[in-house]
Amino acid sequence: MSHKIELFVPAITPFAEDLSVDTDRLVAHAKALLDAGAHGLAPFGTTSEANSMSVSERMAALEALVDAGIPASSLIPGTGCTALPDTIALSAHATRLGCRGVLMLPPFYYKGVSDDGVYAAYAHVIDAVGASDLGVYLYHIPQMSGVPITHALIERLMKAYPGTIRGLKDSAGKWEYARDVIAAFPEIATYSASESMIVDNAAAGGAGCISASSNVNPAGIRRLIDGLGSDAQDALLAQVSAVRKIFEGLPLIPAIKAAVARQHGDDGFARLRPPFVATGPEHEAAIAQAVDLAAGKVPA
Amino acid sequence: MSHKIELFVPAITPFAEDLSVDTDRLVAHAKALLDAGAHGLAPFGTTSEANSMSVSERMAALEALVDAGIPASSLIPGTGCTALPDTIALSAHATRLGCRGVLMLPPFYYKGVSDDGVYAAYAHVIDAVGASDLGVYLYHIPQMSGVPITHALIERLMKAYPGTIRGLKDSAGKWEYARDVIAAFPEIATYSASESMIVDNAAAGGAGCISASSNVNPAGIRRLIDGLGSDAQDALLAQVSAVRKIFEGLPLIPAIKAAVARQHGDDGFARLRPPFVATGPEHEAAIAQAVDLAAGKVPA
Repeated sequence: MSHKIELFVPAITPFAEDLSVDTDRLVAHAKALLDAGAHGLAPFGTTSEANSMSVSERMAALEALVDAGIPASSLIPGTGCTALPDTIALSAHATRLGCRGVLMLPPFYYKGVSDDGVYAAYAHVIDAVGASDLGVYLYHIPQMSGVPITHALIERLMKAYPGTIRGLKDSAGKWEYARDVIAAFPEIATYSASESMIVDNAAAGGAGCISASSNVNPAGIRRLIDGLGSDAQDALLAQVSAVRKIFEGLPLIPAIKAAVARQHGDDGFARLRPPFVATGPEHEAAIAQAVDLAAGKVPA
Repeated sequence: MSHKIELFVPAITPFAEDLSVDTDRLVAHAKALLDAGAHGLAPFGTTSEANSMSVSERMAALEALVDAGIPASSLIPGTGCTALPDTIALSAHATRLGCRGVLMLPPFYYKGVSDDGVYAAYAHVIDAVGASDLGVYLYHIPQMSGVPITHALIERLMKAYPGTIRGLKDSAGKWEYARDVIAAFPEIATYSASESMIVDNAAAGGAGCISASSNVNPAGIRRLIDGLGSDAQDALLAQVSAVRKIFEGLPLIPAIKAAVARQHGDDGFARLRPPFVATGPEHEAAIAQAVDLAAGKVPA
């Protein structure tokens, strides 16, 4: 590929027994992901249960990552909340820390809002942060947010805030959306939410992936990225897709945390905040299989 | 009616020109609503754009109402956020102030969560607040929250927290849901979100309504409640339903704020936080008609 394809991991957020944020385990997991080949992290997004955390918890956790020596330039933390003052505070904080950018959900409580309103929300946040080094990655996940990121919105934001609108994450699940965004807006970095789409994403001119299951299979996904266009590409894609497919049949975020816990040999990584509940015995075999597949212990 | 039927108004939250919370206008509107006959207020809910406000803004606004002399015992503020620490902080704060109860959304970012998870979320908050005078009103508004309040959930919560689970607001829009909740759980106070349902709600044993349009027509709704079972009932119901029907054809929250602004003769009441946008000239005639109907200037 002539352009750079990257893996940013939406790192899970471990919780302690009292459900407070477990920054020690968070830092350990983050370092393990980078050591395994991830180009960076996109913490505090959907997989990270970020909207289950308060603003102060999110800030403290991001600081813990940076204080532990993780380069801020490799971090794209999520900052989009329902309340614009919260989004502003988190985005300004991440920018001050030197983060590469922020992954920004639109305000997501109200459904059926207009593009004019979503534009006004993003514009209000960008204006209020008022930092030329703020980099915004738009977050398209309508099945959770209820608020899609339309082409008209992207175009309007890019015109008003050139240099600030730097990318987009497509978590809607169908390749066509990312394909069309990449074609229409080749100058921004468009990430797919599934490693199964990396080959298509790269070929179309996209920027790579930010995938929940990359918490479990960062090395495999990195190998695929490094092997794009090589003879090994198809086998590497088959491996990451096989791991991915297992999680698609499970309660996603609980299963990702359970798999990470199994990899670390530490049940503490599996804890979730409500409204999530832990996976049960009926999921154990599939989670073990995903971990074994990721480790190359069984063929894809 | 042998039992008490009440109107709690989900008071709009006015914003200043810089979009900060305008507590002066909030207090003025709250007092006007009570003067017009509302039994109480359910501020900081959906109509109030509460999820567009930070936790500290919500606390300060609630304190402003109480400091202005509005009895805390007539307030059921909304406190449900995506992050349980925020829900806990707001619920504890409202309870400390002596509020009658809190209207608690389930955590609403994640969709398709299990009843077990929603139960765990409510239980976690109630345990963490740890106050015997905490009164929880469950908030069923699946079209926004994506998380319905099921009968199984209500039953389980009532068994675990008798005395704490005091009521429910049904904002889903169909009478059948409230009817079935009232029949199954007559010991809690079930409010409908539309004044058009008050007659049915009262006859079934419900507690009344918490309706967006009661911001505009509190006196008419109070007259209906006072006239339940009288010869005037049908005409009173026709009046409140006529006002209600106009708003159902408009962008609801912007139109409610525009109507309140018209009633106060003060455009400052109409400002909204993004993602909402103000109503346009095409809505003006309908909004004026709703205000005139509410004032009895034109027949229903």
